[in-house]
Amino acid sequence: LQKIGVFTSGGDAPGMNAAVRAVTRAALANKLKVVGIRRGYQGMIEGDFIPLKSNDVSGILQLGGTMLKTARSAEFRTPEGREKAYKQLKKAEIDAVVVIGGDGSFTGALVMSQEYDFPFIGIPGTIDNDIYGTDYTIGYDTALNTVVQAVDKIKDTARSHGRIFFVEVMGREAGLLALNSGIACGAEVILIPEAKGDHDQLNKFLEKGYKSKETSGIIMVAEGDEAGGAIQIAERVRKEHPDLDVRVSILGHIQRGGSPTAKDRVNATKMGVAAVDALLDDQKSIMIGLDNEKIVHVPFNKAVKLNHSIDTNLMDIQKLLNT
Amino acid sequence: LQKIGVFTSGGDAPGMNAAVRAVTRAALANKLKVVGIRRGYQGMIEGDFIPLKSNDVSGILQLGGTMLKTARSAEFRTPEGREKAYKQLKKAEIDAVVVIGGDGSFTGALVMSQEYDFPFIGIPGTIDNDIYGTDYTIGYDTALNTVVQAVDKIKDTARSHGRIFFVEVMGREAGLLALNSGIACGAEVILIPEAKGDHDQLNKFLEKGYKSKETSGIIMVAEGDEAGGAIQIAERVRKEHPDLDVRVSILGHIQRGGSPTAKDRVNATKMGVAAVDALLDDQKSIMIGLDNEKIVHVPFNKAVKLNHSIDTNLMDIQKLLNT
Amino acid sequence: LQKIGVFTSGGDAPGMNAAVRAVTRAALANKLKVVGIRRGYQGMIEGDFIPLKSNDVSGILQLGGTMLKTARSAEFRTPEGREKAYKQLKKAEIDAVVVIGGDGSFTGALVMSQEYDFPFIGIPGTIDNDIYGTDYTIGYDTALNTVVQAVDKIKDTARSHGRIFFVEVMGREAGLLALNSGIACGAEVILIPEAKGDHDQLNKFLEKGYKSKETSGIIMVAEGDEAGGAIQIAERVRKEHPDLDVRVSILGHIQRGGSPTAKDRVNATKMGVAAVDALLDDQKSIMIGLDNEKIVHVPFNKAVKLNHSIDTNLMDIQKLLNT
Amino acid sequence: LQKIGVFTSGGDAPGMNAAVRAVTRAALANKLKVVGIRRGYQGMIEGDFIPLKSNDVSGILQLGGTMLKTARSAEFRTPEGREKAYKQLKKAEIDAVVVIGGDGSFTGALVMSQEYDFPFIGIPGTIDNDIYGTDYTIGYDTALNTVVQAVDKIKDTARSHGRIFFVEVMGREAGLLALNSGIACGAEVILIPEAKGDHDQLNKFLEKGYKSKETSGIIMVAEGDEAGGAIQIAERVRKEHPDLDVRVSILGHIQRGGSPTAKDRVNATKMGVAAVDALLDDQKSIMIGLDNEKIVHVPFNKAVKLNHSIDTNLMDIQKLLNT
Repeated sequence: LQKIGVFTSGGDAPGMNAAVRAVTRAALANKLKVVGIRRGYQGMIEGDFIPLKSNDVSGILQLGGTMLKTARSAEFRTPEGREKAYKQLKKAEIDAVVVIGGDGSFTGALVMSQEYDFPFIGIPGTIDNDIYGTDYTIGYDTALNTVVQAVDKIKDTARSHGRIFFVEVMGREAGLLALNSGIACGAEVILIPEAKGDHDQLNKFLEKGYKSKETSGIIMVAEGDEAGGAIQIAERVRKEHPDLDVRVSILGHIQRGGSPTAKDRVNATKMGVAAVDALLDDQKSIMIGLDNEKIVHVPFNKAVKLNHSIDTNLMDIQKLLNT
Repeated sequence: LQKIGVFTSGGDAPGMNAAVRAVTRAALANKLKVVGIRRGYQGMIEGDFIPLKSNDVSGILQLGGTMLKTARSAEFRTPEGREKAYKQLKKAEIDAVVVIGGDGSFTGALVMSQEYDFPFIGIPGTIDNDIYGTDYTIGYDTALNTVVQAVDKIKDTARSHGRIFFVEVMGREAGLLALNSGIACGAEVILIPEAKGDHDQLNKFLEKGYKSKETSGIIMVAEGDEAGGAIQIAERVRKEHPDLDVRVSILGHIQRGGSPTAKDRVNATKMGVAAVDALLDDQKSIMIGLDNEKIVHVPFNKAVKLNHSIDTNLMDIQKLLNT
Repeated sequence: LQKIGVFTSGGDAPGMNAAVRAVTRAALANKLKVVGIRRGYQGMIEGDFIPLKSNDVSGILQLGGTMLKTARSAEFRTPEGREKAYKQLKKAEIDAVVVIGGDGSFTGALVMSQEYDFPFIGIPGTIDNDIYGTDYTIGYDTALNTVVQAVDKIKDTARSHGRIFFVEVMGREAGLLALNSGIACGAEVILIPEAKGDHDQLNKFLEKGYKSKETSGIIMVAEGDEAGGAIQIAERVRKEHPDLDVRVSILGHIQRGGSPTAKDRVNATKMGVAAVDALLDDQKSIMIGLDNEKIVHVPFNKAVKLNHSIDTNLMDIQKLLNT
Repeated sequence: LQKIGVFTSGGDAPGMNAAVRAVTRAALANKLKVVGIRRGYQGMIEGDFIPLKSNDVSGILQLGGTMLKTARSAEFRTPEGREKAYKQLKKAEIDAVVVIGGDGSFTGALVMSQEYDFPFIGIPGTIDNDIYGTDYTIGYDTALNTVVQAVDKIKDTARSHGRIFFVEVMGREAGLLALNSGIACGAEVILIPEAKGDHDQLNKFLEKGYKSKETSGIIMVAEGDEAGGAIQIAERVRKEHPDLDVRVSILGHIQRGGSPTAKDRVNATKMGVAAVDALLDDQKSIMIGLDNEKIVHVPFNKAVKLNHSIDTNLMDIQKLLNT
């Protein structure tokens, strides 16, 4: 092992830069050369490589986004695309690659490593925190705090006007972000795909809210809720309760960026170092995970399955505190 | 003058609490009694009054929203509603009132003061900063910084993915917030109602952006732009430039809340004290304004006209820096 | 069990309000009455009690500090003081108490519960995160992020001037905060009581830094480091390296306050609910802890022993990344 | 005019990067070449120059500190040093220079321009906002907000414990930052060099505070107060009022860094463009200032005199609100 590549793939997540820095510095400290692959698998296909020295990753630890950029690549899903990518890696004398991304990125790595016996190590980087085999993915803690700070602001207006706000947060298939931000902001109701009976809770709240003109409310909605997004739900509520002052806020893309929290920086750093360790230990096709704060190795085969489990205890707590 | 009322009206704005605190404490220091009128003109009609002592306004200086709540009142627009309001004020022995709000709130005060010879003093509180006769309205500086911080986050993603983001900010009739946040965030294009030729600039940028796959861009859009909001404009762009990765973010209600900036707290405090001074000086039907950091008195008659002028120099600067 | 008390004790920590809210609402939902005891054990002795309804804890979730206030009490350390406290609890018909604080607060609770067979349940609230038996104490995550944001600012100046900054953070006996914030900020050196050889690392860095005029550096210092605080260490360095531009920043009390992070709010809420659950299950003299995100019960006898263990792996990582 | 230089000098201030970006882009748009001079006058003497293209100043608008670095230079104060500097500028074919800094930086520019008839244009960049002839200096608004956010945190602890905090902020000769942050945070007392009788106010507050055990207080202290810094004043107070729980917090270097506020970014941008305009208009030895939001030209001769005037009205307001 003499030269490794590192890249980011899929949606950007705060802390990816911290992971790139840790991979680079840990590799350099172990006398490896490091190459940054820009724009994910697409850049790999195009040979968009830059050498990384210690100084190149200086001052990026606290920045959101990813200095290596990221992209989707339809071409990489074809055998021809992967062949091009493999040839680019060989040409650049790259012996192994660290990929920072989500389950889609790991699937790509798994297929290519099977076709070409090329070692990939994964680091989970996605604000959704829905990867199987790890308690934690890079970016989730920052995104959660971004949502909480945004909802705190909305709550100022909700309380001042006695309004009911439907706030939609990311989570197409999972309600983790909606559930935790809802608890953290004291949301009156939380609507997530995993829950049964949460719309009953909404109706109960609206009946109660209907009666007192001072009541305000925050309803957190995961974008993947079975009843539709915040706009559809609010529309229905407006019809059924025309007296209520109902508003919608879709947080959207502000949930992705921003300077990473302490936790995202520390964990990204730990995982970056662990990825280089794994390569030095001759590992391949595994994702670095965290289980109870300890580093674990999770086979890509497992990690590509999404984890949708949710702390049902938190849902009970939310209901209890809003009875 | 023995007892005054104070209330907030219209949309909530960060710094309103600082103004309520300053009015209350300045009045108490001048041996006046103070009554908080809750929920704007509607609360006035209903007699929803609370006495305010020094302690009641302790710890609110740094909070967003308004502790007195705010509301719209259709009833106050009727002579009957205003009569009820006047009777409530008389019954509570309130001799004069300080109203914190926007042009609509001042219109209401003007009408009522003409009908009943009742003294009102206004303090401009609106994040739009579009009131005639004052350089500054409470909440604008905080809203501007909230927008800038949100766009900084979006820019992380835009740069990481090479995307073009249309970011819509508040400003139904004015582009002040879009223009200043656009300059502050280095937006590539700014689309505001006041500008001519800004869509030419957009087209020019898109031609340029079309060619290089790494180019990202932030297009700030004031909600009142003549070409429609961000969603419509982005749709048109997607059709004309199907190769570009175009996204939309509507900042919405997060622009309203949040802990006020230093400037909003200091100015709200100055204006609150000046409002009580004006009442002690036997003034009425004026708004407290700031002209070059100095307190000025602006007749309601003038203040209710919106000020849509915009610093055209800033538009030139924006174009110059993005040539 | 019909009426419970709740209070905060020791140093304030962000998230204490979230815990007070959760205890109150969970108790009310279980048909218990709730009394807030103000100013810790001193307020207990003086009978400084306030009834808590659901509304009284509305809007406090996101506020730093503690609405119940906190204080040290020399009197409570005497048998006479504890007798007074017990009589006040009896007089107010309080059947059990939830105490939110650190090891000193739990020691007091343990002694009193042994003397008077009175049930106490503890919730760990301290920014030091040094309580035995729990992975987490309320306030630590917020304090860590506050430190990180402050050091990010200092780093701007350090890099602009090529300066070396010694930044002192809280931690009289433990280096947890210094270690984690140091990793999160990319500190060149971290000096903590638990480490051996960290001053060698400092010397090595200074030799290197001495040679290049552009080098800047952040040295994190836990206040309890064996070599003294940041001021003493910097003084010694200035003597040995008069050419270096050395500065000191003691973060001090800004580390304690501020709006709690999402994690501190969610965990404080979980723990508050779990404390009421424990009382309903007839538990006493235990602290609610979190072990791998799950609620655990830790006997006060164990929790009063401080946990000074530190992740030595993190120290190795820090050295590796700065070779 | 074909090639200009730009540099930052003196203490770093948030917004300096925005000014460097605006100077660079405005010059490039006017077909000028741009050279960045690193590390202030010292870098000028050493010929530490880098060419600046549009891309080199991309992504710096929102960063604190200065990408061109800054330094003090004893050598530049000697005729020999200035001769070296002049020769380096000539050698690099630089025709004129924009200097971003404080009064010391302008003094240097004035002396050199008189000795060598070399055109300098100044942009005021200092968090102290104490330059004659301009309402505004780059960095002040950010520093003010940083102080306010830090004091908000300290206030959480002060209120929770009933403590009195002496908070020392920057301002060796001027109390502007202390006065405005004190108003913005609701400080009970503000001690600044410009005020008479402020220590009487302190004594009055302490007498009052002494009586009620729940009173907390924030005393803002400008470092240049005639009674000494916060540590000395607090020591005296502790002796005279041993019953009070008195603490000190010196904010120090965190006041300098951080992402600039919207205002600092917009004004730095305006001033950067205006500096290039001035050079194109064949101006020299002037500082770009802002007078009531409009660009003005202030001769260096005037700008090097510090402006210590303070809004005495604000001091009266502070006293009024704390009677």
